[in-house]
Amino acid sequence: MSCMFKFTRITITLIAIAGFLGILTSPAQAEDGYDLWLRYRLIDNAERLKNHQQTAVSIVAAGDSPTMTVAVEELHRGLSGLLGQDIPRKDAPAKTGSILVGAAPALQKLAPNLKLPDITALGPEGYSLQSINSDSFKGTVITANTDAGVLYGVFGFLRRIQTHQPIDNLDIKQTPRIQRRMLNHWDNLSRSVEKGYAGKSIWIWDELPGKRDPRYRDYARANASVGINAVVIHNVNADPKIVSDEYIAKWAALAEELRPYNIKVYTTVNFGSPMLFDGPNKLDTADPRDPRVSDWWKERFNAIYAQVPDFGGVLVKADTEGRPGPQQFNREFTDGANMLAEAIAPHGGIVIWRAFRNKALTNNEPDVVKRPYLAYAPFDGQFADNVVIQPKYGPSDFQPREPAHPLFGAMPNTPLFLEVEITQEYLGRDLHHVYIAPLWKEILTFDTFARGRGSSVAKVIDGSLYGRNISGIAGVANVGSDRNWCGYDFGQANWYAFGRLAWDHQLSSEQIADEWLKMTFSHDPHFIAVARAIMMESWPAAVSYLRPLGFTILSAYNHYEPAPKYRNFKGGDYNIADKDTVGVDRTLKGSGAVTQYNQHLTDLLDNVDTCPLKYFLWFHRVSWNFPLPTGRTVWEEIVWQFYDGVRTVEDMNNMWATLKPYVDAERFDRISNKRAGHLEHARKWRDTCVSYFQSLNELPWPDFIESEFHQKPPTSKSKK
Amino acid sequence: MSCMFKFTRITITLIAIAGFLGILTSPAQAEDGYDLWLRYRLIDNAERLKNHQQTAVSIVAAGDSPTMTVAVEELHRGLSGLLGQDIPRKDAPAKTGSILVGAAPALQKLAPNLKLPDITALGPEGYSLQSINSDSFKGTVITANTDAGVLYGVFGFLRRIQTHQPIDNLDIKQTPRIQRRMLNHWDNLSRSVEKGYAGKSIWIWDELPGKRDPRYRDYARANASVGINAVVIHNVNADPKIVSDEYIAKWAALAEELRPYNIKVYTTVNFGSPMLFDGPNKLDTADPRDPRVSDWWKERFNAIYAQVPDFGGVLVKADTEGRPGPQQFNREFTDGANMLAEAIAPHGGIVIWRAFRNKALTNNEPDVVKRPYLAYAPFDGQFADNVVIQPKYGPSDFQPREPAHPLFGAMPNTPLFLEVEITQEYLGRDLHHVYIAPLWKEILTFDTFARGRGSSVAKVIDGSLYGRNISGIAGVANVGSDRNWCGYDFGQANWYAFGRLAWDHQLSSEQIADEWLKMTFSHDPHFIAVARAIMMESWPAAVSYLRPLGFTILSAYNHYEPAPKYRNFKGGDYNIADKDTVGVDRTLKGSGAVTQYNQHLTDLLDNVDTCPLKYFLWFHRVSWNFPLPTGRTVWEEIVWQFYDGVRTVEDMNNMWATLKPYVDAERFDRISNKRAGHLEHARKWRDTCVSYFQSLNELPWPDFIESEFHQKPPTSKSKK
Repeated sequence: MSCMFKFTRITITLIAIAGFLGILTSPAQAEDGYDLWLRYRLIDNAERLKNHQQTAVSIVAAGDSPTMTVAVEELHRGLSGLLGQDIPRKDAPAKTGSILVGAAPALQKLAPNLKLPDITALGPEGYSLQSINSDSFKGTVITANTDAGVLYGVFGFLRRIQTHQPIDNLDIKQTPRIQRRMLNHWDNLSRSVEKGYAGKSIWIWDELPGKRDPRYRDYARANASVGINAVVIHNVNADPKIVSDEYIAKWAALAEELRPYNIKVYTTVNFGSPMLFDGPNKLDTADPRDPRVSDWWKERFNAIYAQVPDFGGVLVKADTEGRPGPQQFNREFTDGANMLAEAIAPHGGIVIWRAFRNKALTNNEPDVVKRPYLAYAPFDGQFADNVVIQPKYGPSDFQPREPAHPLFGAMPNTPLFLEVEITQEYLGRDLHHVYIAPLWKEILTFDTFARGRGSSVAKVIDGSLYGRNISGIAGVANVGSDRNWCGYDFGQANWYAFGRLAWDHQLSSEQIADEWLKMTFSHDPHFIAVARAIMMESWPAAVSYLRPLGFTILSAYNHYEPAPKYRNFKGGDYNIADKDTVGVDRTLKGSGAVTQYNQHLTDLLDNVDTCPLKYFLWFHRVSWNFPLPTGRTVWEEIVWQFYDGVRTVEDMNNMWATLKPYVDAERFDRISNKRAGHLEHARKWRDTCVSYFQSLNELPWPDFIESEFHQKPPTSKSKK
Repeated sequence: MSCMFKFTRITITLIAIAGFLGILTSPAQAEDGYDLWLRYRLIDNAERLKNHQQTAVSIVAAGDSPTMTVAVEELHRGLSGLLGQDIPRKDAPAKTGSILVGAAPALQKLAPNLKLPDITALGPEGYSLQSINSDSFKGTVITANTDAGVLYGVFGFLRRIQTHQPIDNLDIKQTPRIQRRMLNHWDNLSRSVEKGYAGKSIWIWDELPGKRDPRYRDYARANASVGINAVVIHNVNADPKIVSDEYIAKWAALAEELRPYNIKVYTTVNFGSPMLFDGPNKLDTADPRDPRVSDWWKERFNAIYAQVPDFGGVLVKADTEGRPGPQQFNREFTDGANMLAEAIAPHGGIVIWRAFRNKALTNNEPDVVKRPYLAYAPFDGQFADNVVIQPKYGPSDFQPREPAHPLFGAMPNTPLFLEVEITQEYLGRDLHHVYIAPLWKEILTFDTFARGRGSSVAKVIDGSLYGRNISGIAGVANVGSDRNWCGYDFGQANWYAFGRLAWDHQLSSEQIADEWLKMTFSHDPHFIAVARAIMMESWPAAVSYLRPLGFTILSAYNHYEPAPKYRNFKGGDYNIADKDTVGVDRTLKGSGAVTQYNQHLTDLLDNVDTCPLKYFLWFHRVSWNFPLPTGRTVWEEIVWQFYDGVRTVEDMNNMWATLKPYVDAERFDRISNKRAGHLEHARKWRDTCVSYFQSLNELPWPDFIESEFHQKPPTSKSKK
């Protein structure tokens, strides 16, 4: 345990006063973003500081497991930083001001007379923060059923201080709503990261297992601080080598680094591994019904668990986008998933089977968004108990907005994990400042009506709707080797928000933004109000200038540049628009995709009058002149939204500029520069798309381009 | 014509430079709000100033009517102020830089060789702004078919400069979409103002007609600048004396003051006047079928038109809230309205008949919101040609949010005017900072489906849906004798926005906010972005803390303080909630109010799944535990919205605080003080309402009060 800060009382008082007056703004440390939201800077409010210094005088810890060790380290580091003085560890509680920390049994042993809070309902990961105010002891108890719970309690306690909530009179119990809160790394063994925009993979494979980058620990701390407890270390487009002895040894070392932080390691596997991996027992098949294949996997799982006894399981992308899978051998997904499940079951692992598009199994269904449902819903109930199906949040492919995936309402007998992207594959990479929590909330609160009203996606995936005993959510990580981890400063907010929502999907986007801003930038309420407004506007704006009115894919193959023409042809996956009409007809008269939802939703979505405008062009093909309840036609509305989205980005930039007095120059300038590029690229999206559509429909440009937005309409470049 | 500013060239340059550097912020003038948006302060951008000074060198006016005189005065005043130098009036165009201003015939006479723009389609009030760049003349033409059009052109031209739009290369034609753009004054002869929160009436009755307050002219200028062309001078609860010779003479003087600004005077009349007005020819009845009554009105209209030849007509509130009306004499509304209409028709006047609640005619219909429709829809087509029906925007009574009034889709054969309140009767008076344009836009874009999709309220009232030749919109004024006119600084925005929307209902709330902010405060884009965000958030926030989720009236009799209990009893107008349920059942199984809308809307509103959440409790009575698509139950959602609304007000205040560097201290402090009171009152609303509802349902307080909003739930005060 190191003491990071040591000040005399006078120094502290001076700094506290200076801080209170707003003079002190993080004197010496580089604002490079490395610390993420775990900055632990001195509290800049003298009264609050004094109050906390009285509440947190010493740490008394019970237990010395690796997890308890990091928990106490974190508590010491956090408190010492925030309170500006060493908060010493003591062996026994003082009469006042001790922070007692430890799992309940150990803590009770240490302080037999202490009446601990009732924690029976907290489960293996929940925690309790309790102020005690008895005659014999006035202090704070951070406790749980396990050391892991204690670790989360420590971070919860520190977060309260970081976000300026009181830490006296605590009576708090917290349990995660979802069991497996997973980061999925699409990291390749070459250290490139698929859809990664923050440098290389943080896993330095050629140094492992011998050398262990200290970042592994900081990465683990960050995850634990928001409750992430599972990491899939490898790309879903998996290299067969990942299950080689050589690589198992490497990621066993990673697992060792992450384990104290209650993070279990998972990996993706290539379904074709038995025939693709150039090892001594290489097969000529990966047919899941071939006993040799099953044995091959059993042998590998034995090898894995020998080195990583708490290995979580495997994530499989099979039979999509050219990846091997059971269909290659004329087998069903159930054959493939259940074979792996049986092989891993003795060790307690699970198989997470991604449900993405699949052409073969769906009779070459031309509407791509119908495929995952067609491929998976019929197999509900036929998967082994330790198989989980993991759909993306929508039925297409991580679009800026999609209706929720219909599978969430269609597999009552199968545990479903929800896969979201924290990385901004379709949301402007590291250039566009987009706070994604509102998108995730829209999906989580989407009502599937599967067991009647109130059957939200959140209740499907947290297991409460059907009483499932496996529950999970996966976020494709935006983490890389860049010093600031996430490519751009505000990108960190998405990592933070994912973890917080995975822990408690009932938190609001606003609250999470609030917490993150306070922990990362400033408590100033003026700053918070403006910065939160910027964040909350950012996703709706991005939807407006990337996919207004429920458009499906409009981007190029790189998923980044605008290319509406490239996507728009008959017989292709999408046929977005022609001279007279726009949208994709997925009604009963069209592709029928609406029927993949509960009957109730089918009716709502099928009808132009009840289909929400946000999904309008997703489900309906209409005339460009179709009048919408906004008072504009579809053509006008599309143009409006593209322009309005860009205007919002301009506003966001202008609002950010007003925050200069509240932010250190280093971060202010860096963010301002990024924002300029964001605006430029948003304009490119707008101009490319509206020009292309106008070249199709040849309709007049709406007057509001000039009157409202003070722009000249773009010159149409592309002709039909 | 007076020259307000005269500077040497050096002074101008210095000021221009100072302004450019942001040093100069309106040096000497008091920022008391008197100038409204017609501030005409020197342009604070040197390049733009120089450019404009070259474009606007002199004024050449054709015509000398009173309207042309004020138009030219305004142009001179505006240009001289904005450009910081006297822009002289000349008799003939110079070769470059002249602003030619006048109605087309007069202008053509003055400059016979000038090719004027084609203005045939502009009608009597439209205008053209045209840059001319011929060999013989380089300059600007402001023209129209009438002097009134020219006046609007002048204000349109000045607005362009005020809002930093270019004034070279102009090719602009503007016509109002609605004919009668009316302010309704609820001003009493005592100079009290019903629902007025900005001092006394601006009409100083005891001074009139002899003495004429200079404010009348400034009031007229402000109205003309946004296109308001009609003023109802008296309260709808009308004093019979208003049509006495004494008072006609008084308001004939007002009409004279307003006439040059193209504003016609209207008045309300008391339907009982023949028997209530203590004059020489007093009757013992006001029965519309009694020929003596008809004669009485003819005589009065003769007297009026003798003094006010362009008198617009009368506005009548009859048989509601105890006011006299034809029902008193067992006659129909048609009898009353048509009798007045016949009497005024020879003079070209109209009768505007307010459609508010009426009990008698509706068989004592217990659901008050059904009454106006029941009382009026059956008479469609039976009113005289010069009768207009004027419903409020919603079927209740100016609530913070209401669905649009069903009459707008139900009287195809009757001209309908839309009545809105600019004054904040239910929206927090002059204390709550609420920008109301978004509410008006919601009503204007509301689709009645009356002639199929796209039959918006806007198209009903602008006459385009049924090809009507009378069209109108009325706003109850928020104007009073206070120095700043509207009670609080941002209240002026609502006056401005009403006029702008009345002229062009397709303008967006954002654009109008933009214009007003630029004209009133600052062009700084950083300021604009934050201030516009504050304005745009203000109405949704007010709805949240005043009437979340479509609640009907929750306020006390004063329409200002929270009093949910007072409204909530069986047999009363409203029965809002009990232990188990909340909302008002207006479905087919309830009061059936949904049937007053087009069948298509009836279906949507009747169904809990398709009824928009914003109108949810307006149409549906459900269990407190009913799950909503927000992921919250109805009880949770109500609590959420009250808290979220208050949080937004807190945010608005914090955002405002960041604008200190952009606003003069006088206005900044005044507005900041007001905002503090606004927040306090919003909290009172929240706490009173949620406490009352919790006392009914006795449900636990949602966790998010503490976790999200960091508050303790209020202690329930009122028990059932």
